[in-house]
Amino acid sequence: MCVPDESARQQIEPVPDGVRVLVWNGGDDVPEGIADTEFLQPGYMGGGEAETLLAAMPQLRVIQLLSAGVERWLPLKPDGVTLCNGKGVHGGGTAELAVVGVMALVRRLPFFLGEQAARRWTEVTTDDLDGKRLLVLGAGDIGRRIAAALEVFGVQTTYVARTARDGVHGVDELRSLVPEADILAVAMPLTDQTRGLVDAELLAALPDGAIVANIARGAIVDTDALLAELQAERLHAVLDVTDPEPLPEDHPLWQAPNLIITPHVGGGTHGWERRAYGLVRAQIERYVAGKPLENVVGETY
Amino acid sequence: MCVPDESARQQIEPVPDGVRVLVWNGGDDVPEGIADTEFLQPGYMGGGEAETLLAAMPQLRVIQLLSAGVERWLPLKPDGVTLCNGKGVHGGGTAELAVVGVMALVRRLPFFLGEQAARRWTEVTTDDLDGKRLLVLGAGDIGRRIAAALEVFGVQTTYVARTARDGVHGVDELRSLVPEADILAVAMPLTDQTRGLVDAELLAALPDGAIVANIARGAIVDTDALLAELQAERLHAVLDVTDPEPLPEDHPLWQAPNLIITPHVGGGTHGWERRAYGLVRAQIERYVAGKPLENVVGETY
Repeated sequence: MCVPDESARQQIEPVPDGVRVLVWNGGDDVPEGIADTEFLQPGYMGGGEAETLLAAMPQLRVIQLLSAGVERWLPLKPDGVTLCNGKGVHGGGTAELAVVGVMALVRRLPFFLGEQAARRWTEVTTDDLDGKRLLVLGAGDIGRRIAAALEVFGVQTTYVARTARDGVHGVDELRSLVPEADILAVAMPLTDQTRGLVDAELLAALPDGAIVANIARGAIVDTDALLAELQAERLHAVLDVTDPEPLPEDHPLWQAPNLIITPHVGGGTHGWERRAYGLVRAQIERYVAGKPLENVVGETY
Repeated sequence: MCVPDESARQQIEPVPDGVRVLVWNGGDDVPEGIADTEFLQPGYMGGGEAETLLAAMPQLRVIQLLSAGVERWLPLKPDGVTLCNGKGVHGGGTAELAVVGVMALVRRLPFFLGEQAARRWTEVTTDDLDGKRLLVLGAGDIGRRIAAALEVFGVQTTYVARTARDGVHGVDELRSLVPEADILAVAMPLTDQTRGLVDAELLAALPDGAIVANIARGAIVDTDALLAELQAERLHAVLDVTDPEPLPEDHPLWQAPNLIITPHVGGGTHGWERRAYGLVRAQIERYVAGKPLENVVGETY
């Protein structure tokens, strides 16, 4: 089998007897014996050209992804190879980051942490979540979890997704819904349709003091437009993703007021690694034992 | 009617025509006409001796509390006076603070805020909530909300309360449950039975890295014992309440590692004020109109 890096190799251990684990991500350091690879776990976040990997593995039988999405691999998958995704390993990590960020802004946690560092007991009345209106872009698992956690505290949710369906508005209605949103949570994939979707006009339509939370992809939000709204102290924001990313040291976003930035750490938690490599180990065990694989999205081997 | 301070008077406005609002909290500045008071809203947090207030108001018909608990006023209430509580005004503010604090520790928000201030994009893999075991002391509304929000992210909850009941362990089982708790949330009232309940022995029985979250009353937790566990970097904590309170500037707790302190701001949010004084206004309107009051816990007038 082939994994993309040393960290993956260590976390997959112990593998069944007789399984040889090669480490390769498509670079010039092609390991000996790569042509015998039957089971491939590619890198999670880009890196490693899929075509290069596949061309080097004529004996390949299984591709085990760690992502839920398979768009990149499905069209490239050779006939007879089984494609499995990472369904179930993601948990709520990304949604957690949106929730803690929004709640930290509402309850002024950055201010209180500053007072704590200065040893000051400064009672300040803060806002709370009760009655706030949440607009979630993306009605998938992440968006649903963000809403479920905030609803415990009296938040009311409206969903917007690419296509309207029961309980979910279509993206064509977004502009008319934004003026009623105290919190705008971006939890949809980056596509040609969503790139720049949250633009200057949409941001301007949010009420004063609204919070923008982006835990999806930086390029869905117009960075310059958001920066202007933050600097005017009109909007607040939580960003686990930025555009560009990583954010350069001299970028003005770092110092914008009422903003919490985390460095794209929503999903890649210790828990995620434990679940992800646990899945890979279980799958290689099943493969060696001749048992059916789980999370199959392509044809069965 | 009589309210405890100027802030309350302003937030209750507008009152119905003919209602005169006096401001008094039992001090030497007794306002003229206090003996005609029919409707009393005492201060929320202590202040204002109940006996002094009641002795000055022989015409009193209604006492409207802002707290859910009525223990202090029920035994003092004169015959024929209706006692109403603040049920419904509290919302989730206190539970919010426990949830945001616990999530901030798990996701290392204080670290990332420090990196943000230094303009550094420092990707660090953090823990997440999935699979963590929550032990809630107190199975009331606050404890249930803490659990409900964290359960969205895969947390498993066990409840402990004064008396065992369906789905709730008795406090006599607490010692045996603590070793299985990754998060211990204190959400029970301070009584003679709960004072010092979370003592050195109980804290020592928590697993390494466990989080203690106290949003109830400082004296339920042994401060010195918790401080020792924090300084040893064995436990983490979120405290919205401390013992003593306010925490003096020279108290070593301020600088303890892996600790978030907020200055008892859990419940007293803008939302709480809006709901609380909205209730008082609605009740005086009902009283003047001769309609039945809500939230009645004593006899009806």
